[in-house]
Amino acid sequence: MSSARKLFTFDGKFRMHRAGYLDSPTMAYETWGTLNSNRDNAVLIFSGLSPSAHAASSDEDMSPGWWEEMIGSGLPIDTDRFFVICVNSLGSCFGSTGPASVNPKTGERYRLTFPVLTLEDVADAALLVTKHLGVECLHTVIGCSMGGMSGLAFCVRHPEAVERFVSISSAARSLPFSIAVRSLQREMIRSDPKWQKGNYEPGDPPITGQRLARKLGMITYRSAEEWAGRFGRERSTDPSRIDGQFVAEFSVEAYLENHANKFSGAFDPNCYLYLSHASDLFDLAEYGGSLKSGFKRLKIEQALVIGVRTDILFPLDQQRELAQGIASVCSNTRLAELDCIRGHDSFLVDMDAFRPVICEYFESCCN
Amino acid sequence: MSSARKLFTFDGKFRMHRAGYLDSPTMAYETWGTLNSNRDNAVLIFSGLSPSAHAASSDEDMSPGWWEEMIGSGLPIDTDRFFVICVNSLGSCFGSTGPASVNPKTGERYRLTFPVLTLEDVADAALLVTKHLGVECLHTVIGCSMGGMSGLAFCVRHPEAVERFVSISSAARSLPFSIAVRSLQREMIRSDPKWQKGNYEPGDPPITGQRLARKLGMITYRSAEEWAGRFGRERSTDPSRIDGQFVAEFSVEAYLENHANKFSGAFDPNCYLYLSHASDLFDLAEYGGSLKSGFKRLKIEQALVIGVRTDILFPLDQQRELAQGIASVCSNTRLAELDCIRGHDSFLVDMDAFRPVICEYFESCCN
Repeated sequence: MSSARKLFTFDGKFRMHRAGYLDSPTMAYETWGTLNSNRDNAVLIFSGLSPSAHAASSDEDMSPGWWEEMIGSGLPIDTDRFFVICVNSLGSCFGSTGPASVNPKTGERYRLTFPVLTLEDVADAALLVTKHLGVECLHTVIGCSMGGMSGLAFCVRHPEAVERFVSISSAARSLPFSIAVRSLQREMIRSDPKWQKGNYEPGDPPITGQRLARKLGMITYRSAEEWAGRFGRERSTDPSRIDGQFVAEFSVEAYLENHANKFSGAFDPNCYLYLSHASDLFDLAEYGGSLKSGFKRLKIEQALVIGVRTDILFPLDQQRELAQGIASVCSNTRLAELDCIRGHDSFLVDMDAFRPVICEYFESCCN
Repeated sequence: MSSARKLFTFDGKFRMHRAGYLDSPTMAYETWGTLNSNRDNAVLIFSGLSPSAHAASSDEDMSPGWWEEMIGSGLPIDTDRFFVICVNSLGSCFGSTGPASVNPKTGERYRLTFPVLTLEDVADAALLVTKHLGVECLHTVIGCSMGGMSGLAFCVRHPEAVERFVSISSAARSLPFSIAVRSLQREMIRSDPKWQKGNYEPGDPPITGQRLARKLGMITYRSAEEWAGRFGRERSTDPSRIDGQFVAEFSVEAYLENHANKFSGAFDPNCYLYLSHASDLFDLAEYGGSLKSGFKRLKIEQALVIGVRTDILFPLDQQRELAQGIASVCSNTRLAELDCIRGHDSFLVDMDAFRPVICEYFESCCN
């Protein structure tokens, strides 16, 4: 399969937000549509923790992207109108430099020698890409889940480079429930003897820890309400997959098993640890000492905050906090509370609910 | 320290609900107060998954019990008035026969040769104890969490042996969210190489898996709301406890660490697997093919169902389902929806909310 992925290598030292630097990091990205002559139709998308830059298919890569129904000709993020950029987060493992990359200085993989990663670094690295593409100021930054915090970091740190912001199922900072969940996911990976303090061989990763972490992810990404309706107490048709007496006898267990198997080989465990930890660290209040002072640094002219009633990872309270904070400095801010039953993941799977809200947002930008 | 624990060994074969039997199982229990001459003042308490029969202190054992503030002279479950019995669940490891016990037939621990455990077995074994104590009909059966389902099994299977039922943060059946959580907890234990398919040495249990499972337990036993107020983004005072770069830097992580360390040595992992699985299996609808037919088997004259708004493991929806079902056959049924912020565990830690509801219940029984 051909790839639409492009690579940009920054020539120099990339200073990390907390401490340390990267030598000439590479960023992977994809684009759709065309930058207009005014260079004012660019939309930058920050993904959640695990996706690559392949948000949608294109002539160069026909495989469906992670937001296939959202980006394209005539779709809510309309590539006939916008030049859409999606960057693989710094620290990830789909082309951008991360813990699984080789350190050019040593010829060895970074592994745990990679400096502490923050979403500020993810934001700053994306700015390098947009500048490289000739975009001085983005029409809109959109961020989903962890990407919403990356996007917020982008807007706060580079107010001159963005006019509008769309946050989807994200927050102004991580709170203890989601920190606890992610902390436990990381501990599951580290507790797998195969992790070997980060020095596993790429072909022999801590797959058991990754599977457990993914299952906990799924439990927090969806909702009890969805599962009650979808699975109820239905029994699995293939209950003998796990050895011993305690088999996966319920459909919900088989569902988790399938999802964990799909994901576990596909993501580098050290990259996961770094990005997960970066999500815990993000706190808009670090800009000036309070959320209020953080919001004051925004210079956007329009914002949309979307949240979902059944999201337990980034609950509605946090959506309201975020929307109110942005509204305090940007009157053209809308909060959309969606009544989806599929929890945090709704933005990936409940297009009927998200499509009209995103469409309406981009239509309102014309006026 | 002296013990108030008494043991009763059933002389014969105890037939298990699903299949198989136990030879002369032993049940551990404690009692408080005195059985009156009419033998109509006995209250039976079913605990959650992990506690022992030591629900409260007494002259024989002064150490505080797991429901110390609820049971005693002048307390909501008043031992001046009632003869209170708490049984260690069959399958547990605090005196009652379970997977960690020695099979008298083989001289070896049962481990995974223990038959499939159900909450029906827990209920039936408790009945043996109450009969042994000379109680023909209980004034009230009270069950907390998993114990609420054990109690419901008791009421459905032995309607002649109980007059009233109090369910606390429980349900008529397990739904997929809680099944998924418990299934993952069990997988964490089984995934620990030290589990050795159940054949670990008692002195060298799968402590890592147990710690992970306990942390997931805590995440689902409390609430995001409580933690946001209690911990916020406060940093740990002792952030270097976990090796590697990813240390427990937030207070909520240190809190989970402390709880996991306290619990993990104290409970036998195989017993945990069996009791956790028994919770998944329970479904009142198995009595006659529907919840409705299950409820129809109840012959109680009064019931109280207590639930907590922030409980994600046994949410309010399930409390309403349970209360409505019982009310369909017992008009004297009350549902108390409590606005506690401490989630599923509120019945253990939010006495100010639970005390008046339990007091009012027992007062209403006088009339």
